[in-house]
Amino acid sequence: MFDFKLEATDGLARAGTFTTPHGDIQTPVFMPCGTQATVKTMAPHELEEVGAQIILGNNYHLHIRPGSELIRDMGGLHKWMKWDKPILTDSGGFQVFSLNHKVKIKEDGVQFNSHIDGSKHFFTPESVIQTQVNLGSDIMMVLDECAPGDSDHRYARQAMKRTHEWAKQSVDAFKKLADPEKQTMFPIVQGVIFDDLRAESAKFMASLDTKGVAIGGLSVGESTEDMYRILDVVNPHLPTEKPRYLMGVGKPENIVEGVYRGIDMFDCVHATRLGRHGCFWDYTGRHSIKNAKFAKDETPLLSSLDNFASSGFSKSYIHHLIKANEVLGIRLLSMHNLAFLFDLTAKIRQAVIDGRFEEFRKEFYDSYKIKN
Amino acid sequence: MFDFKLEATDGLARAGTFTTPHGDIQTPVFMPCGTQATVKTMAPHELEEVGAQIILGNNYHLHIRPGSELIRDMGGLHKWMKWDKPILTDSGGFQVFSLNHKVKIKEDGVQFNSHIDGSKHFFTPESVIQTQVNLGSDIMMVLDECAPGDSDHRYARQAMKRTHEWAKQSVDAFKKLADPEKQTMFPIVQGVIFDDLRAESAKFMASLDTKGVAIGGLSVGESTEDMYRILDVVNPHLPTEKPRYLMGVGKPENIVEGVYRGIDMFDCVHATRLGRHGCFWDYTGRHSIKNAKFAKDETPLLSSLDNFASSGFSKSYIHHLIKANEVLGIRLLSMHNLAFLFDLTAKIRQAVIDGRFEEFRKEFYDSYKIKN
Repeated sequence: MFDFKLEATDGLARAGTFTTPHGDIQTPVFMPCGTQATVKTMAPHELEEVGAQIILGNNYHLHIRPGSELIRDMGGLHKWMKWDKPILTDSGGFQVFSLNHKVKIKEDGVQFNSHIDGSKHFFTPESVIQTQVNLGSDIMMVLDECAPGDSDHRYARQAMKRTHEWAKQSVDAFKKLADPEKQTMFPIVQGVIFDDLRAESAKFMASLDTKGVAIGGLSVGESTEDMYRILDVVNPHLPTEKPRYLMGVGKPENIVEGVYRGIDMFDCVHATRLGRHGCFWDYTGRHSIKNAKFAKDETPLLSSLDNFASSGFSKSYIHHLIKANEVLGIRLLSMHNLAFLFDLTAKIRQAVIDGRFEEFRKEFYDSYKIKN
Repeated sequence: MFDFKLEATDGLARAGTFTTPHGDIQTPVFMPCGTQATVKTMAPHELEEVGAQIILGNNYHLHIRPGSELIRDMGGLHKWMKWDKPILTDSGGFQVFSLNHKVKIKEDGVQFNSHIDGSKHFFTPESVIQTQVNLGSDIMMVLDECAPGDSDHRYARQAMKRTHEWAKQSVDAFKKLADPEKQTMFPIVQGVIFDDLRAESAKFMASLDTKGVAIGGLSVGESTEDMYRILDVVNPHLPTEKPRYLMGVGKPENIVEGVYRGIDMFDCVHATRLGRHGCFWDYTGRHSIKNAKFAKDETPLLSSLDNFASSGFSKSYIHHLIKANEVLGIRLLSMHNLAFLFDLTAKIRQAVIDGRFEEFRKEFYDSYKIKN
């Protein structure tokens, strides 16, 4: 279980299959965020319809509400939310730092107040493994300290060292608490935007006895250039036989560039958040459906995609739904944006297998115009 | 086209079939409200899945945004919103009065400001037929004056007389503007809660050359007792060969009592609005899913209903979704509440056909507890 089979490479780009108790994941893969045990606006069968292979849950949010014990008592996260394909749960380290003001970092863990009711909580490397065992996700993440993108070298190093110490404790906690046939765990490379720290962190995380490695802290305000450079620094130190997961990224162009730099797994709230804000992607770029030019546009969002959101309704109708604040509008755009990313990753995978990824990347930029 | 075949009666209760260009409607029927060209939170295929036979659109809302001409240019309401079963459109008379403060009633129509952008509009009996011809609904409604439930007899009579005059003009406008093979039109009985006015209005509307008759002004603040009494007053004056539509009603118990008093068609926003407020119906009554007793309830909303909202998820999970303000929660409750009303009307219809409606009504109240 949790074997990663590398099926093709093309430059640094990789195509593989990761085996989990809830099914195989073909990489490169984009994983939609089901933060509160639901991918926003979508039903599980719709995720299957558009081709989701694995979704995320969030240990921070589910610990706060309704609590991991309740989900365990209801049969675990898969059964509770009716999703029987793989689930990856983030440890909640990132959310502790991004959603809370009163965070106290201690040597043995992190203290914070709930963003819902202000109640006090304490996460340790072991406690987040325990709560993720309660959730029953296929892939658990370790507790890390996600230092801000503008941290200085001294603080970035301190946070990285703590993250390494916690990662070691997590490996011990995993051995103590988890069944390795049912769950696995990825550590997280940190080091902010400092090349020396990132290289050190990558080597350290690569040395741990885990089935995959994640790269964190690259969606917290640093520039796209920094992100791509850090990937160039990190990837040579990561073992080829483990899947590499770039956390919290991305946009279509980030996925193309991530794969180009050896990444296998991606997640991001952007696809569904864009949908809730009235935006959609196609192979020419990102668009706002509210634009007046769509009011009488009888074409669908993307006719080549065979799902009811992408090809079932006209842009004219969706333009109206979004202007009128109707839920169906954000449902259709969220679903389409996910379908688009799944189509993109499937095309990327095929290009890698066919040994024409470089060509694909050029073609992509010929038609896709990046907006910031 | 637009034939009504009365298939069974049991006391005053009726079971029939109404033929339209977009398919047959088996009555009694509950019609979900698709006010802004979407039944809130739901996709068209989900409406079909739970058994919707006909939905409503609203001429007021669609005239204001995006305009009936745009919808006509996009191929009509059915094609635009991807619903190929029957559609009934309300004239917007009710919305003019309920959504606007600056309403000026004139002999030839009603002037009002848009609740969206304040722009000035004028509805006449003929103009609302024209816009409904643009929309292409199967059943159009006449412009009426929906006087407040606390109007005195003098004002109620004046509004009724105006409504009668407008109904006559509507019949003329219909002959001039509409294709009777594609669309039909119902007039609306008014008269507030005054028995003499309601009887007079029923006789008048019954005398017009239309394929059905509606009863309006019974969901604007009057008591349930007044509503049921008015139905007793009105129905003897309505022709048996035309379907009778009670506008803006109802709750499950209102539907049972409406059918008991000879009503064939119902609509109401209540089912989906309740869903958005975290409530659901089953055959024991109305419940709030937020109630703590549902936090660990592993049973579905109603296992006897075969759709993913009613029987696909536990109350525990839906309790969480609603507490966490997740769209999937309001989707599931809205869809379930509609499924429940369709199940209820199907059971009522079968009871009428089997000549055991009185018994069904008693059984219903044995289990269903009414809350106000």
